[in-house]
Order: sequence, then C-alpha cells, then structure tokens
Amino acid sequence: MHKVVTVDLERDILSENRRIAEENKKHLEDHGITSFDFLGAIGSGKTLIIERLIEILKAKCKRAAAIAGDVSGDDDYTRFVAHGVPAANINTGKECHLDAHLVDHALEDLPLNDIDYLFIENVGNLVCPVDFPLGSHKRVVVISVTEGDDMVRKHPAIFAFSDVIIINKVDLTQAMEVDPRILERDARRINPGAKIIMMDARHGKGMDELVKALGL
Amino acid sequence: MHKVVTVDLERDILSENRRIAEENKKHLEDHGITSFDFLGAIGSGKTLIIERLIEILKAKCKRAAAIAGDVSGDDDYTRFVAHGVPAANINTGKECHLDAHLVDHALEDLPLNDIDYLFIENVGNLVCPVDFPLGSHKRVVVISVTEGDDMVRKHPAIFAFSDVIIINKVDLTQAMEVDPRILERDARRINPGAKIIMMDARHGKGMDELVKALGL
Repeated sequence: MHKVVTVDLERDILSENRRIAEENKKHLEDHGITSFDFLGAIGSGKTLIIERLIEILKAKCKRAAAIAGDVSGDDDYTRFVAHGVPAANINTGKECHLDAHLVDHALEDLPLNDIDYLFIENVGNLVCPVDFPLGSHKRVVVISVTEGDDMVRKHPAIFAFSDVIIINKVDLTQAMEVDPRILERDARRINPGAKIIMMDARHGKGMDELVKALGL
Repeated sequence: MHKVVTVDLERDILSENRRIAEENKKHLEDHGITSFDFLGAIGSGKTLIIERLIEILKAKCKRAAAIAGDVSGDDDYTRFVAHGVPAANINTGKECHLDAHLVDHALEDLPLNDIDYLFIENVGNLVCPVDFPLGSHKRVVVISVTEGDDMVRKHPAIFAFSDVIIINKVDLTQAMEVDPRILERDARRINPGAKIIMMDARHGKGMDELVKALGL
C-alpha cells in the first residue's frame, strides 16, 4: 500500500522538478548565463574546483557567481563570497540533495544581469542528486582517489548522467594505494561519451582541461 | 498539497521503520547477538574498520558476521566473505540508505545461531541513514580527515545520534592540511556524550580504543 503511494508521489515530484528545471534554464539563458552544476561525494573537492574556476574567469574579465548547497552551515558559501563574487546559500535541512525549486529561489537572490557563468554546488552525496536536474547546462561529477577504487562501480547512475567526470586528488594516489586508472576504466565503461579528467585541484593540475571541457 | 502528503507519508514510513528496527533488535537478542551499525561518508574507511574488527574477534574465538549495504555492486560483501565469516549483501538500488526492513530480510540469510557479533555497514552517506535505525545496539559514524575540517558542522544530525565517532585517516593529516582537532571539537560540541576516536585504520592506530568502546 505504502509502496504504491510512494511511487506515484515520486513520479509527481520528479516531473514537477523537471518542469521547474526547464524554467530555470530558460530564466538563466534569458540573462545570457551559462551554468554548471557540480555533484560529488563529501570532501571530493567540489568547492575548491569552483573557487579555482571563479579566479580563472576573473582573470578573463568574465563574471562568475555561485550557489552553495549543503544540509547545514555556510562554510562553502563563505568561501565563494571571499572571492568577491555574488553567491547564495541553500541549506536543505534534512534533504540530501538540491532540487530545481530551491535553485529557483536562490536565483532570486543573485544579480542575474551581472553574471556570465553560474556554478551550483550540490549537497555532497553520490546518490540522491541524480534524479533532480537543476536547470544547468552541464553536469560535472567530482570524486577523489581517497574514496577508494570501487566508487564508480558503487554509484553508476551519477556517472551515467554527467557530462564531465573529474577524478581528483591524484597527488594522493601513492599515499592511498589506490589506482586511479580503475576509476577511469569504470567511468568510461558506464559513460563512454563523458569527458574524464585526472585532477589535482590543490596544485592546479587538470584545470586547463576542465576549462576547455566547459568552454570557458 | 504535495508537501502535506509527503510529510504524512514520511511519518508513517519512519514509525513503521522504528517498529521493524525494534523487532530486529529483539530477533538478534533472542540469538544472543550484539550488533553495531557503521555509518559514514563514501571512502571514509567503514569496510576496513569492520574487516579489522572481524579479525580481532576471530583471534578471541568470537564469531562475527557482516551485512554490506550499497547502492550497487558487491565489493564490500566480497571483502567480508574473504575473511571467512557469514555475510549478506544489500543493494538499495536508488535508495540512499538501509532501512530496518531490508536488514530484516538480510537476517534471513545469516546463520543467527552461529554468530556472536553482527556488523552492519550502511550506504556511504552522511545524510539519509540518520532517520532509519536498523535495530543495532550501537551506532558508529566514521569520517576521515580527507573530507575536510567542515564535515561535522555540515552534517550535525548524524553525529548527534551516534554512540561512537571515529575520525579516520589521521596519518594523512599533514598531506591534506586538515586539522583533525577541528573535527573533534565540532563533534564534541554536537554530542558531548559520544566516544570520539582518532584512528588510522590502515596502520591499526585507534583499534584498541574502538574494541573497548564497543565492549568486544
């Protein structure tokens, strides 16, 4: 009994989310904004990568903005603000992912006429965000070698539905005794069309490739 | 409209889960089994810690068993089986957490009369599993310094409702430029009664403390 109700409700929620996501995308395009949403596990390096992209865009006189999504707190938001760009903070409370409706509200807090590129950082989680497109133009998933070499196999859906797959912290490969080529092989198997980038964001490795993949 | 329905449904699901969790606990106690469930982010080291506990128990002629919970695949299950103990694998499909009903089914696959201690490893995720007790006797949450020093602040609930908090991979503190004392301070603030253990599971550091905390 419960099961039937849940499934129907889920279908409603997902189709409603897709509708709002399309509206978000149109809203952004009306203001000439290209947007990217970043998914990935906790601590995989999403915030740092976005911070680096913000600085790269600033050097090109392009205007970036960011939305930070977290269950609780404003640590990531504060990091974005420190780069002098417009930012919004979304706390999901008990929810394990952003949805299009939450992003719609965050857009109200941003000066859309003064933005060229918008980065949306989702809650750190490789499961829940998959089914909830937010209206961005490209989806980037970030994992790190510290998570172990079985991470891709354990969460195939998120890799199947991303445009760019970043394998981060490759500088720690030896300390972790993890072979990043296993992550790469599994990712390529699940999503042969995705761009896969080996990265060490802390030391800047792989950023050029990412800039190219996002067309920045 | 949607919201109201969702909230009521959620309440039903949570109370039904609690009921089954109590049944699981009684079922385990009827067989003289003490059980622990391990929560934590992806790649925080849950599987390795359980593997080490299994070996410690074997050396004491105690009989362990394990349930591996993952969205997809059987990597962790295979690791447990390699230690020669009874194990069960739960794939949640699209769900981001185990629930008591799934554990109830997994118990059917285990030789309960031949087990002293049962370890349940939840899906790697610091959000979703919080509200779903499984029927275990103690809850252990594992995080690692590779996840950054804001991890506890970002996910207060899971730390508030755990008995033991493990801060793992402290050997990587320097390479990661993360101060584990910040994680410890935040954890103690959220849950003053919890046992907090600094661990380097790969090299065995902190295991004695954990054995003591779990009464093994």
